[in-house]
Formats: sequence, structure tokens, C-alpha cells
Amino acid sequence: MPDRVLYDLAGADEDRRFSPYCWRARLALAHKGLEVETIAWRFTDDAVSALSSQGKVPVLVDGGKVIADSWAIAVYLEETYPNRPSLFGGDAAMAVTRFVNSWADRTMIAGMFPMIAHDIYRHIHEKDRAYFRATREQRLGGPLEDAAADRETRVVTFRKSLEPVRALLAEQAFVGGATPTYADYILFGGFQWAACVSSFPMLAPDDPLNAWRDRIADLFDGLGRKGVKPPLF
Amino acid sequence: MPDRVLYDLAGADEDRRFSPYCWRARLALAHKGLEVETIAWRFTDDAVSALSSQGKVPVLVDGGKVIADSWAIAVYLEETYPNRPSLFGGDAAMAVTRFVNSWADRTMIAGMFPMIAHDIYRHIHEKDRAYFRATREQRLGGPLEDAAADRETRVVTFRKSLEPVRALLAEQAFVGGATPTYADYILFGGFQWAACVSSFPMLAPDDPLNAWRDRIADLFDGLGRKGVKPPLF
Repeated sequence: MPDRVLYDLAGADEDRRFSPYCWRARLALAHKGLEVETIAWRFTDDAVSALSSQGKVPVLVDGGKVIADSWAIAVYLEETYPNRPSLFGGDAAMAVTRFVNSWADRTMIAGMFPMIAHDIYRHIHEKDRAYFRATREQRLGGPLEDAAADRETRVVTFRKSLEPVRALLAEQAFVGGATPTYADYILFGGFQWAACVSSFPMLAPDDPLNAWRDRIADLFDGLGRKGVKPPLF
Repeated sequence: MPDRVLYDLAGADEDRRFSPYCWRARLALAHKGLEVETIAWRFTDDAVSALSSQGKVPVLVDGGKVIADSWAIAVYLEETYPNRPSLFGGDAAMAVTRFVNSWADRTMIAGMFPMIAHDIYRHIHEKDRAYFRATREQRLGGPLEDAAADRETRVVTFRKSLEPVRALLAEQAFVGGATPTYADYILFGGFQWAACVSSFPMLAPDDPLNAWRDRIADLFDGLGRKGVKPPLF
């Protein structure tokens, strides 16, 4: 095995790796052609806080060097492995991709969260549940069980919020252009998150974004497909 | 003068050039160091529909070649003048900048429009008013006069929608990174639009985006400042 490990958020089933940020990191590593051992990590495990003050995954340990945060990991990989396929396609592309990252976190991920928060709760390890409920109910301003109550309405707004992506993908195969870049993995990570914990459909069946998702899922010997365990409900 | 003209939307005062898309094109030309003669154009003038089936500005006529649409103009300039400063910083950056374009049109411009629609109406040429009212009231679903009624509330949502940009600019000087690129001009164009026709403040005085706006306005010998006539109200 390589001297490279990624701490990767897992559910009760340790093969259920559902973090959108960890997906970004896994796809970034695969894009660079770098092997990695993923280590299942639960919210209340100590391993990560011992490595990084942030105390969150993804955390990459690469030959003894510790890098926390998905964006920092992508930048680290780009700078450390310049001779492997570029994740961004240059400095200007990296800068603008940061906008995609910023937008995805605040619009896409934030828009999805209430719709799947209770589904996440039901898939995580029992030991994580009190922590998750307390922190996420504070964020949501109410019970996990209530957050999804209006998701049939909420998903309409969510799907509409993806219109800038949809318009883009009417013009080019990937967010990164003719071939996928980290900008694609950022957005794909959000869909993986939902797909790992919920059968609630984030996209309508006729949404053209489905074809783009399929293209990303096919990459790297189907990494994006192999990593998804069907949600329990 | 160069054999290069840009049809540029003007108000009743022909020096009031307020189109956000024309601003993108003007900054793109300046970034490339290309001189251009701008021609004041009003919504109901025939000149542009004679050149382009789209019938909208900006339209660039460069040595006899006609290019309509701000995005197409930027791409044309990048491809036609590759030895001048790059507008994007490479193909991948261009692809991802298209996301900024797509987002700006659908979120930023669309969010601003109701707040300034009536102010635009009051600044445009008398001959354009019936056309503008008819087409824009259909878009707004009601009278121009009513659209701005709740703008004190609406601007709160608008400012919040800029959070992905704000977060980005906490990390880097420009959307394009250490130096400005077309991604910056896309967003700046929206603010110029409002500033040309309305004294309603789109940004709070303490918004960190103000400093970024100032940096863009300073470029190219203050092009973004010289082009703004104080709105009449």
C-alpha cells in the first residue's frame, strides 16, 4: 500500500462513505492517479482531531504530511504532483474554480442538507447520533424529523438553483470544459452525498444533469458508482 | 480610429451606457488593449438588428466581422488576439468562467433587475419606453413601478446571494486570482449597470465587495469610473 491515507466519513456501515467533501478528495486523488487507503471515520472518533485542529474530514496524510479540508487537499495535490494530470488547468482556472467551490458549499450543499438531514441521521453510527442531532438541529433551527417535511416543495427550489450548471452543461460536456476537472468533482460530491443516504430524488428523471453525473460516475473505473451503497430508505 | 466599433446601450443621455453585458465587452476589449469606438444604441434603433439576428447589444464589429453576445465577444477576442493579455488564463479557466457567467446572469442580474427596472425606465430614451415597459412588465409579471416597492427587503436576499463571491474574495484579490480576468468583468458589469441608473445601494457600505469593485474600477485608466454618469435619482 502507498504511504497515503484519507480519513473518510462513514456511516453505521463502514462502507457507506457519504461525505460530499470526502468525495471531492477521493476524485481528486483518482484524477491524479494516486493510490490511497481510505480509513472509515465517524463523527465522534478521535483520530482526526489528533491530526488536525479542524477535527473534520477529509484529512489526507501523504507521506507523513497532514492536509485537512477538501479545497486544501486539491491545491496540495496540484502543487505536489505537477507532472500528473492537472486538477484545475492552470492558476486562473484554480482561482475561478474556487468560486464553484464557494457556490457549491453555500447554495448546493446548503440547499440539499435539510432534505436529507434525517436520512443521514438514520444511516450514521449509533455512537454519532447524539452529536449529529445536537449540532445539526441547531443549524436547522428545529428537529431533524421536521426538516424534510416540505422537501417536495424544497426540491423545486433546489433544482432551480442548479440552473447555472444546467445552462453551462448545455454548452460543454463538463464544468471544466471538454474534460472533467476539480470543478466537476466539487458538484458531483454533493450528489454522491445524497445518493449514499437517501432515495429521495435530487434531480428529476428528465434533468440533463443526470447524463453529466453518469459521465463523472464512469470515470476512474467507475469510482463514483462503486462507492455508493444503496440507501436503506 | 481603429476599424473596430462596439454598439453600446445608451440612455436618454447618450453618455449613459448602462448595459451590464456591454460593460463586460468594454472591459474585455480594454483588457486586450484594443481600442474601440463605442456607438450609442437605443433599444428601438434598427442598426443592430441589421447586423445580427439577435437584435441585442453588445455587438462588436471588428474589421468587418460581426460578433454578437458578450460571451461570444470575449471568446472571439481571446481567440483572435492570443498574443495580448489572456482574458481567461487557459481553456479550463474559460470553461469554468462560463459558470460564473451563467451564475451571474441567472442570480446576480436577475436578482438586481426588479430593484432597478423602474429606474432604468426613467433613464432611457423616450422612444424606447413603450418597448421597455411592455417587454419588462411581462418579464416581471406586473408594473415597473411596483417591482421596486419591496426593494429594501429584496436587497437583503440579493446581498446574501453574493456570499459565494464574498467568501472567494476573502481569499484572493480577484475572482480570476491574483490579477483580474473576464470572470471579474462579468460580475463588475452587474454593479456598473445599477450604478449607471440608480442611486439605490446594491451593497452595504461595509461590504468587502466594495474594495474589489474599486480595484476593478481603477483598471485601464479608470474606465469603470469614467463611464458612469451619476444617476438622476
